[in-house]
Amino acid sequence: MLLAGLRLPAIWRRFSSTATTTIVTKAIPSKSHLHKPLPDSAFPKGYILTGLHCGVKKKPELLDLAVILSNSSRPTSAAACFTRNAFKAAPVIVSQEVLQSSSGRARAVVVNSGCANAVTGKQGMEDAWAMVRATDSLLPNPPSSSETLVMSTGVIGQTLPIAKILAGIRALGPGKEGILGSTFEAWERAARAFMTTDTFPKLRARTFTINGKEYRMAGMDKGAGMIHPDMGPPAPSATSAGQLHATLLGCILTDAAVSPRSLQSALTYAVDRSFNSISVDGDMSTNDTIIVLANGAATAAEEAEIDEERHPEAYETFKQELTAFAADLAKLVVRDGEGATKFVTVTVEGAPTYKDAHRVASRISTSALVKTALFGEDANWGRILAATGSIPLSAPLDPTRVNVSFIPADGTAPLPLLVNGEPEKVDEVRAKEIISQEDLEIKVELGIGSESAKYWTCDFSYEYVRINGDYRT
Amino acid sequence: MLLAGLRLPAIWRRFSSTATTTIVTKAIPSKSHLHKPLPDSAFPKGYILTGLHCGVKKKPELLDLAVILSNSSRPTSAAACFTRNAFKAAPVIVSQEVLQSSSGRARAVVVNSGCANAVTGKQGMEDAWAMVRATDSLLPNPPSSSETLVMSTGVIGQTLPIAKILAGIRALGPGKEGILGSTFEAWERAARAFMTTDTFPKLRARTFTINGKEYRMAGMDKGAGMIHPDMGPPAPSATSAGQLHATLLGCILTDAAVSPRSLQSALTYAVDRSFNSISVDGDMSTNDTIIVLANGAATAAEEAEIDEERHPEAYETFKQELTAFAADLAKLVVRDGEGATKFVTVTVEGAPTYKDAHRVASRISTSALVKTALFGEDANWGRILAATGSIPLSAPLDPTRVNVSFIPADGTAPLPLLVNGEPEKVDEVRAKEIISQEDLEIKVELGIGSESAKYWTCDFSYEYVRINGDYRT
Repeated sequence: MLLAGLRLPAIWRRFSSTATTTIVTKAIPSKSHLHKPLPDSAFPKGYILTGLHCGVKKKPELLDLAVILSNSSRPTSAAACFTRNAFKAAPVIVSQEVLQSSSGRARAVVVNSGCANAVTGKQGMEDAWAMVRATDSLLPNPPSSSETLVMSTGVIGQTLPIAKILAGIRALGPGKEGILGSTFEAWERAARAFMTTDTFPKLRARTFTINGKEYRMAGMDKGAGMIHPDMGPPAPSATSAGQLHATLLGCILTDAAVSPRSLQSALTYAVDRSFNSISVDGDMSTNDTIIVLANGAATAAEEAEIDEERHPEAYETFKQELTAFAADLAKLVVRDGEGATKFVTVTVEGAPTYKDAHRVASRISTSALVKTALFGEDANWGRILAATGSIPLSAPLDPTRVNVSFIPADGTAPLPLLVNGEPEKVDEVRAKEIISQEDLEIKVELGIGSESAKYWTCDFSYEYVRINGDYRT
Repeated sequence: MLLAGLRLPAIWRRFSSTATTTIVTKAIPSKSHLHKPLPDSAFPKGYILTGLHCGVKKKPELLDLAVILSNSSRPTSAAACFTRNAFKAAPVIVSQEVLQSSSGRARAVVVNSGCANAVTGKQGMEDAWAMVRATDSLLPNPPSSSETLVMSTGVIGQTLPIAKILAGIRALGPGKEGILGSTFEAWERAARAFMTTDTFPKLRARTFTINGKEYRMAGMDKGAGMIHPDMGPPAPSATSAGQLHATLLGCILTDAAVSPRSLQSALTYAVDRSFNSISVDGDMSTNDTIIVLANGAATAAEEAEIDEERHPEAYETFKQELTAFAADLAKLVVRDGEGATKFVTVTVEGAPTYKDAHRVASRISTSALVKTALFGEDANWGRILAATGSIPLSAPLDPTRVNVSFIPADGTAPLPLLVNGEPEKVDEVRAKEIISQEDLEIKVELGIGSESAKYWTCDFSYEYVRINGDYRT
């Protein structure tokens, strides 16, 4: 029980103005058991990459620069979704421009952690472009116009230590290409270079089959605070102008061949159902970016790129694989959320539209009252209901048709809390048993349609307040 | 410094999986110094009221039932704004029906605390009506159709102990009318009967002048959690169906004479700029209700009721007075917010529309990262900026025109944090000096219009997590 030691009389906290409260919580353990080695063969073909320490972060053992190159003999397609925040960081704006001018053909990704290059004005834009150009020059047959996408995460309002970063990129240049590799170790180093307040590198791989042929996708991402992304495909944006903040960054690489426009369609669909459906604290960052490259390295030279119009079935398969993989990566971010002790799936069914279901799931997932109840392991359906009812829907909600239940992670029977708008007589012992597990699913059935959505969230703990109340000091 | 004792190495919290963290916080003191006696003459004429203990709450010293009657010889107008939550509690639905069927003529208000009569199905509706009818019978010249509005706050999902409540109301009936009074003590008792987790009764009075004649308004309200109201005038609603939750309830009484429709217009305007502009935790309740009665007891018999079309100037004055008074009452709720150690005004200026300004102010006011930074007394403008940029506006935001500053409560010079989208070199000592005060104003200038809005919020503390993580246990 996390709240042991707190049983002070309720009145005490209010009327004892000079006293202090002592709160004893379990320290949130590192989630490093979620990082596991993978065989080299699990990774997509035609990529070389690494992570290194170039000096953005102070401690030399912390990696802060990742470089990912496609060396496939086929054209590499690229797509990305970017934060919809009006204050887009320089790397977001630059990556959008690269994607647009290259018509979705990019072969490299460069990422630094430790400094977000956000709210850094003209200098920030120059620095982001410098990272892009330095990485372009590492590519086989260096392009005339840029083919590198760039991401940054870390402190806001400070300019990059650009000389160190450029030296780090150049250290991978002629004569030193061997530093870039394609083994598990190389992938892991790249994933480590994404990390800020993350407690483990988030690296996953997946094999899938299209028309009987096997392909791979692998990718890495990072959180762990300021996580409530809302990302869309590249869009015209205003130009953007020292504080620590986290951000969602992710990069997915596949050796399938997919046309640029279909890669973008599939990613937009996947991001809506994965990264745009997670919340740690309800706060949207200025830097959130998810990039996908498809280099066709596992596709025969004569075979066409998968396209949504010409190969609808193959495209559908690819889209679903990408969505499932993106969801896996997204969930890792929630599991490693700042101060998180719970991993909670919020499922909303029976909505008139997907957007309705998604909005209700988002509201439940960001409710401070729901999240503190989860931390306190309290089956407080009243708070779930109040959050559900606070969202205007495209059709009126009929409270007498709403069901709320807990789905235990261990596969045992669901626990109904509210049936047809009437509270169930809840077995509190059973409720406690379910909610004291790390994983939990909250299911809300609205009963006014057939659309559904899922959201993944975590609880709100003392540790969250401590990490974020004491962040810069 | 609230976070003293927490200076553990940052890495410790993550990698020491068996240890516990000890957090020492100041207990949040009662805000009872904000409750002060008022002269009897401060209160509007023509109202008799009281608060008593009828037994909804266990402890006999806690009042849980308030009855307010107008005994003016003129007709009494009534208006109300109700939660827009789809799960409206029974008293919300019943009060809406009374207001509609009485065409805005109601003379009584009955309130209980300790049980919200929410998610209580058919029984809940019957109980709310029983409270209304019992209170109707206390009125001079009891009406044929109901003239009582009803409010409840407290546990959700439990039915009212209706026999106790009805006995309490009847105890004010024939032969015992003397219990109802119009002195400060009577007003204070009524205000106390509104309280749940509030640490003080919220009672205020105000004198104002229209056409050289003096009127009064007085009122009470309560918080202190599940506070992020969005209330509108009565609207058609679905019918609604045991957990503790708080709610916003408020009642304003004036001895001016105002026509029912103009009273509603004025209240709707006032509520948008007061109660609909506060947030403690971002969670909207199922019971939020603000009622206003205008009984004309200070208006000569021959004088017409103020009406927005016939007396636009008098109406405008009344509307502004009501808005200012409602804001005073609303701010008390924030000041007494669960776990609050700060009272923060968020001012957004230079927006294309009022709604834009209001939405940005609301997002900043509910951002967990902004609120934990306030608790940690950290001048983290990056979080304010990220919250600002996350709201889509009716005109595109130009980051290079945005200013963010802190306005100290002590009248000393404002501290610019961001000017034209560029971070200022902030004097951290000065920033700390400002943010360590209890009151603070965050000002955001968007630079793309002339509309502005204010929001009032508090910080997010360990105490908030403790109160809400340990609420039912």
